[in-house]
Amino acid sequence: MAKIKVGIAGATGYTALEVARLLMSHPGAEVVAATSRAEDGKSLAEIHPSLAGRCDVPIETLDPKTIADKCDVVMCCLPHGASAETVHALVQHDVRVIDFSADFRLSSLETYEKWYGVKHPWPQRIGNVVYGMPEFFADEIAKADVVANPGCYPTSAIMPLSPLVQAGLIETDDIIIDSKSGVSGAGRSAKVATLYCETNESISAYSVGNHRHGPEIDDLVHRIAGKSIKSLFTPHLTPMDRGILSTIYVRHRGHTAAEMIQCWRDQYANSVFVNAVDHLPATKHVAGTNYVQMTARDCGERTVLVCAIDNLAKGASGAAIQNMNVMFGLPEATGLA
Amino acid sequence: MAKIKVGIAGATGYTALEVARLLMSHPGAEVVAATSRAEDGKSLAEIHPSLAGRCDVPIETLDPKTIADKCDVVMCCLPHGASAETVHALVQHDVRVIDFSADFRLSSLETYEKWYGVKHPWPQRIGNVVYGMPEFFADEIAKADVVANPGCYPTSAIMPLSPLVQAGLIETDDIIIDSKSGVSGAGRSAKVATLYCETNESISAYSVGNHRHGPEIDDLVHRIAGKSIKSLFTPHLTPMDRGILSTIYVRHRGHTAAEMIQCWRDQYANSVFVNAVDHLPATKHVAGTNYVQMTARDCGERTVLVCAIDNLAKGASGAAIQNMNVMFGLPEATGLA
Amino acid sequence: MAKIKVGIAGATGYTALEVARLLMSHPGAEVVAATSRAEDGKSLAEIHPSLAGRCDVPIETLDPKTIADKCDVVMCCLPHGASAETVHALVQHDVRVIDFSADFRLSSLETYEKWYGVKHPWPQRIGNVVYGMPEFFADEIAKADVVANPGCYPTSAIMPLSPLVQAGLIETDDIIIDSKSGVSGAGRSAKVATLYCETNESISAYSVGNHRHGPEIDDLVHRIAGKSIKSLFTPHLTPMDRGILSTIYVRHRGHTAAEMIQCWRDQYANSVFVNAVDHLPATKHVAGTNYVQMTARDCGERTVLVCAIDNLAKGASGAAIQNMNVMFGLPEATGLA
Amino acid sequence: MAKIKVGIAGATGYTALEVARLLMSHPGAEVVAATSRAEDGKSLAEIHPSLAGRCDVPIETLDPKTIADKCDVVMCCLPHGASAETVHALVQHDVRVIDFSADFRLSSLETYEKWYGVKHPWPQRIGNVVYGMPEFFADEIAKADVVANPGCYPTSAIMPLSPLVQAGLIETDDIIIDSKSGVSGAGRSAKVATLYCETNESISAYSVGNHRHGPEIDDLVHRIAGKSIKSLFTPHLTPMDRGILSTIYVRHRGHTAAEMIQCWRDQYANSVFVNAVDHLPATKHVAGTNYVQMTARDCGERTVLVCAIDNLAKGASGAAIQNMNVMFGLPEATGLA
Repeated sequence: MAKIKVGIAGATGYTALEVARLLMSHPGAEVVAATSRAEDGKSLAEIHPSLAGRCDVPIETLDPKTIADKCDVVMCCLPHGASAETVHALVQHDVRVIDFSADFRLSSLETYEKWYGVKHPWPQRIGNVVYGMPEFFADEIAKADVVANPGCYPTSAIMPLSPLVQAGLIETDDIIIDSKSGVSGAGRSAKVATLYCETNESISAYSVGNHRHGPEIDDLVHRIAGKSIKSLFTPHLTPMDRGILSTIYVRHRGHTAAEMIQCWRDQYANSVFVNAVDHLPATKHVAGTNYVQMTARDCGERTVLVCAIDNLAKGASGAAIQNMNVMFGLPEATGLA
Repeated sequence: MAKIKVGIAGATGYTALEVARLLMSHPGAEVVAATSRAEDGKSLAEIHPSLAGRCDVPIETLDPKTIADKCDVVMCCLPHGASAETVHALVQHDVRVIDFSADFRLSSLETYEKWYGVKHPWPQRIGNVVYGMPEFFADEIAKADVVANPGCYPTSAIMPLSPLVQAGLIETDDIIIDSKSGVSGAGRSAKVATLYCETNESISAYSVGNHRHGPEIDDLVHRIAGKSIKSLFTPHLTPMDRGILSTIYVRHRGHTAAEMIQCWRDQYANSVFVNAVDHLPATKHVAGTNYVQMTARDCGERTVLVCAIDNLAKGASGAAIQNMNVMFGLPEATGLA
Repeated sequence: MAKIKVGIAGATGYTALEVARLLMSHPGAEVVAATSRAEDGKSLAEIHPSLAGRCDVPIETLDPKTIADKCDVVMCCLPHGASAETVHALVQHDVRVIDFSADFRLSSLETYEKWYGVKHPWPQRIGNVVYGMPEFFADEIAKADVVANPGCYPTSAIMPLSPLVQAGLIETDDIIIDSKSGVSGAGRSAKVATLYCETNESISAYSVGNHRHGPEIDDLVHRIAGKSIKSLFTPHLTPMDRGILSTIYVRHRGHTAAEMIQCWRDQYANSVFVNAVDHLPATKHVAGTNYVQMTARDCGERTVLVCAIDNLAKGASGAAIQNMNVMFGLPEATGLA
Repeated sequence: MAKIKVGIAGATGYTALEVARLLMSHPGAEVVAATSRAEDGKSLAEIHPSLAGRCDVPIETLDPKTIADKCDVVMCCLPHGASAETVHALVQHDVRVIDFSADFRLSSLETYEKWYGVKHPWPQRIGNVVYGMPEFFADEIAKADVVANPGCYPTSAIMPLSPLVQAGLIETDDIIIDSKSGVSGAGRSAKVATLYCETNESISAYSVGNHRHGPEIDDLVHRIAGKSIKSLFTPHLTPMDRGILSTIYVRHRGHTAAEMIQCWRDQYANSVFVNAVDHLPATKHVAGTNYVQMTARDCGERTVLVCAIDNLAKGASGAAIQNMNVMFGLPEATGLA
C-alpha cells in the first residue's frame, strides 16, 4: 500500500517538528511537503536541525492547490484565524486536513468569536467538524474532511472528566482544574516571556480565569457526556520542555476513587493510549509518548483526579497522527509509542 | 555590640546550608558551631563547598551542654522526633532554640501524634511554643526560649488566607490549596525519588489528601484568624531547586479580588517582607529572598489567590533569621534580602 | 518470522528502561524476561511507571539457565565485574549476550585490571569479544556470541576521531577531549551527588585525568584506525537528563575542517545513524535518537571537532538494539529513530 | 556618610537587574536612576517583578546631563558601540562610569574594530581605561573616571592563567580554554535561539574559534603577566541560568598542580573573592556570589585548570559593585556575598 502523503502547513513550530519527528518512524506515512512564509527556500532540516540527514523536504510558501495536489492530508499548524482560512482553501482543493488551531473545536460561533476576538472566516463549519479524539469520535474521524485536533490542556481534562460526568459519579457544577504545562505549549516565537532565563527555575500561573481552553473543556465534556458542566480552569507555566499535569478537584456523589478508576477502565478498555493507573502519574511517565495516565484519590467530600499527558504528543502532534491513522484506515497506534 | 553566636544542629542539609549562607553576610550574627553525627571531624565548608574559604567552623557531634555554652541561639535542623529531644536538652542548658522541625508547630498533641506517628518526647510544651511568623507573633517571639519555625507550604498558605478569613471575606469550609514546590523541599538525603533524572523535566502530585502540612495550615489559620477552616491541600514536586507557588481556590462572600488585595495591604502594612502585588507572581520573583508575593483574581463565585515564596528562605532559613533578629532585638530584616 | 526474545539483566536502571522503551515499538523483538535481585516479584512497569499498561513482564532473580532458555539474547545491564560473571554463565547456556558493562571492551587484561581495580572473572575472552559499533565491526557482530556494547563517552570520541586518524589528517599525540554528559550517565542508584538539587543549575568536571573511558577511547581508535593515539579526556556533569557533547581539540596536518567533514562523509556513507553536519550540533538535536551529529571548525593550527550523541541511545541502549539487529539479520535501523 | 548614588543605563537586562538586586542590600549605595528608551515611564519594579515593593525608581530615557546630575556613578549596561557614546557623554558631564560593554576593555583600537566590526566612537580612550579587576588594578580603579568592567568568560580565564603565566609555570603558546556558560550570558532580548525549549536539556558549542572574548583574554593576560599568550577559546551554552565553568588545558614546565594552586594562593592572598580550592569546583558552589573557585589537576605533560564563577556576579554585576566600592573608598567586599 502506498504511504500516506502528508503536508505540514506552518512548519517552523514545535508541533510541526513533532509531527515530522513522529512521521520519520511511521511505517505508513511520509512528509512530502512543508510550508512557511518566513523560511521559504530552506529545508525542513535547516530550521529543525534534529532532522539533519533524515529529511530533505524543502520549505515552500503555502499555495493551497499545490499542497493539495501533493498531499493526502495536511497537518495545519497555523495560528487561529489564519488556520481556518487555510483549512477552507485546502478543503476546496479536496485534501483532508487536521487542524491544530482552535478554529473548529468549539460548537458555538458566538463562544469562538468572544474568546478568540476574531471574525470566523468559515462560520458555516462551526458545530460541523469532528473533534479529533478517537477515544470518543473514531467513526466520524474516519470519514472527516476536516478534523479539529484537540487542545493540549483540554485533552488532559476531558479524558478524565467525561466518563465520570457521563456515569453521574461527580457533581457537574463544582470542578476545579489546576493544570501545569511545559514551556513548549507557549510556542516557538521569539518572546521575552519564554526565554530560558525567564521560565527556568520558576513556576507561575497565567490567564487565571480567562484562558481560552476553559470553554473548550466545558463544551467537549458536554458533547461527550451529554451534561453541561461548569469548571474553573487555571494554567501554570512549568520549567520543563514537555508535559501537562492536570490536578482536578471534583465533588463525588458518594463514590470512591476506586470506583472512578474502574469507570475509566471500563470506558477506555479499547483505547490503547489511555491508562487508568494506581500510582500518581508524573509527566515524565508519558513524556515523548501518546499515552495518558490518570488516577484518583479520595479526599473527604472531594476526589482529586490527576492526569498526565505529553502536551506535544497526545496534546497535539501524537493525537494528530492517531487521527490520521483513523482517517486512513490504519490501526490507531501505527507509528506511535 | 557583640555578634549573636549561632549554632546549627544537623548541619548537612539544605536548610542548614541556607542558614550558614545567610549568616555569611549578616552584620550582627555569626556561625560558631555546627553539628552532625555523620560528618563529625569535617568542616562546614567541606560538606558545603559553596562555603569554601568563607567559613571554617568544624563539624562536631551534638553535645547539648557544649553547644549551649558556645551559642546564644541554636538553629535546630533535625528531623521531627529527634528534634524535640534535642530542643528539650538545649533549653535545659539555657540556650534559645529555633526549631525547623514540625515538633512544636501544632497546638494539639493528639493531632501531632496522629500525623507524625511518634510519641512526642516533650508533650508538656505542645500548645506552648510560639509559631515563628513575626508578621503575627512578634511579641511572643521576642521573649521565646523556643520558636517553632513554620513549615514551607504552610507559610505560602497561611499568609494569604489568614487575613481574608479574619476579615470574613471568604468561606471557611471550601478552600483548595494546590501547591507546587521545588525539589530542595525534599531534603538532601540519598533517595532514588529525588535523583536528578527522576524529577527533572517532570511534575507530579504527591501525598494527595494526606500531607502533614495540611493540618498545620488549618491549625495556624485558626490561631491567627480566630475561626476554624477546612482546607484540601495537594503538594506537587516541581523541577526547580527552590520556590513554592500556592494556587488557592476560595469562595468569596461578595467581595472582589481587589478588596482582598487591599485587605492584605492593610494587614501587612508594617511587614517588610510581604508584598500584595498586582501581577501574577512567579517563584523566580522571590527566589533567594525572604519576600512573599501574593495576588488575587476574580473567577465568578470563586477567587483565585496566588502566593509565591522561596521554600528555603521565607519557607525555612530566612524565616529563622527573621525570628532570630526579633528574638535578639535587631531590626527584623537585618541581613536578609 | 518469530520475534527476537530479549531478556534484560539488571532491569532497574536507566539503560534497562531505555532498552525496554525502545523495544516497545520494535517490530521484530520483544522483552520476555527481566531480572533484578532487589525488585524480584514486581513487574517491570512497577519499577518504571512509564511502562504502565504497556509491559507486564515480571521481574525475577537472575538464574542463567532459566533466562537462557527463554531468550534469544540478553541485554546485560549489570555493573562491571558482576557483569562478566553473568555473561560467562549465560554464554555457557547458549544464549547470546550484549554486555553494557566495560568488562569486555578493552583489548588488554592488564589495562582492564589496572583501571577497574578487580580481577577479571573471565580473562580468556579479553581481546576476543567484538566491540559493538556496527559502523566498524558489523561482520563480527553478526556472528558474535558476546558483544561489548560501547561506552557512552567513547562513542562520542571514537566516531569522529577514528576516520581522521586512519586517514592521517591529524596528529595522534595531541588530542584533548572535553566531554559534557547529562546526568543519566551517572546511573539510578541513590547517591547525594546526583540528587536533583546537587546537579541542577550547575556544571562541573569530574575524574579529571583518570576516568575509565580514557583508555577505552585510545584502545578503540587504535583498533579501528591502526595507529595508537594519546588523548587527554575530561568528563563534565551537565544539568540535563540525556546527551553527550564532546568538544575535541586536535592538531591538523595541513588539512581543513571541510576536508575532515568530507572524510567523515566518505567513511560513514553507508552508516545510517552518523551525520557529518555543517551546523554546530547541540545534544538536543539527537536527544531520544540513535543519531550522531558531528562537525569540524578551523582554528589556526588546531581543528575543533564537535560531536553530539544521546548517551542513553547511541551511547548505550540504542547501540545495543542496533547490535541486536545486526546479530539477528535485521536491517540495522529496525525499531530505531 | 552619604550613600553613593548609582544610575543604571540600559536597565532592562539581566546585568542591570543583578546590579539593582545587589544594591538592595548594599549598606553604602543606592539606585537613584534607571534608563531605558523602550520602557520609559514604567518603574524598575515593573520590568523586573522581583523588585516589587522594594524599589520604586522610575525608568527614564537616558539624558546624560540629567543622569550625571543625579548620580555619583553610572553602571552602563548598553550594547557595545552605543555604550562608548554614552560613556563619553556621561564623562563629559563629570560623572564616573562603570562600563559593562567591551568598548574600553581592549588595549588596541585595531583589535577592537576588527572583532566588533564598528568604528569606535571614542578612540582616544582606547588603551587608557583601567580594566575593572581589582585583584590586579585596584589603585588605578580607585582614581578612574571610567572603568571597563571585565567580560564574563575572560574573568574565568584571566584569573587562573595570569599568575601562572607571570610565574613562568606554564607554556604560553598552547592554552586551550573550554568554557561553559549559563544562558543569562546571552542577554534578555527576544530571540528564538535562547527560548527555553531551544536551550533547555541541551548543550552546544558556539562561535568556535571566533568569539570576541578570545582576544580579550589574551590581551589581559599579557597586560597582567607581562608575557603574550596564544589561547584557543571555545564557549558553550549550558542549560542553567547562571555560572561559567572554564576547563583550561595548559602545558606545564615541570611544575605540579599543587605548585600552581600554591602560586594562586600567594597571588590572591589578599583577594577576598578568589579561592584556590582542593575540590573540583561546580558553578553551583559560587552561584549568586562574587566568589571565584579554581583548582588544578596533573594530567601527564598537561595540567587541567578548572575555574568557576557566576557570570552575572563576578562575571558582570558583582565585579561592578566591587569596582564601585574601590572607586569610592569602601571596603572591596561591601554589600557583596
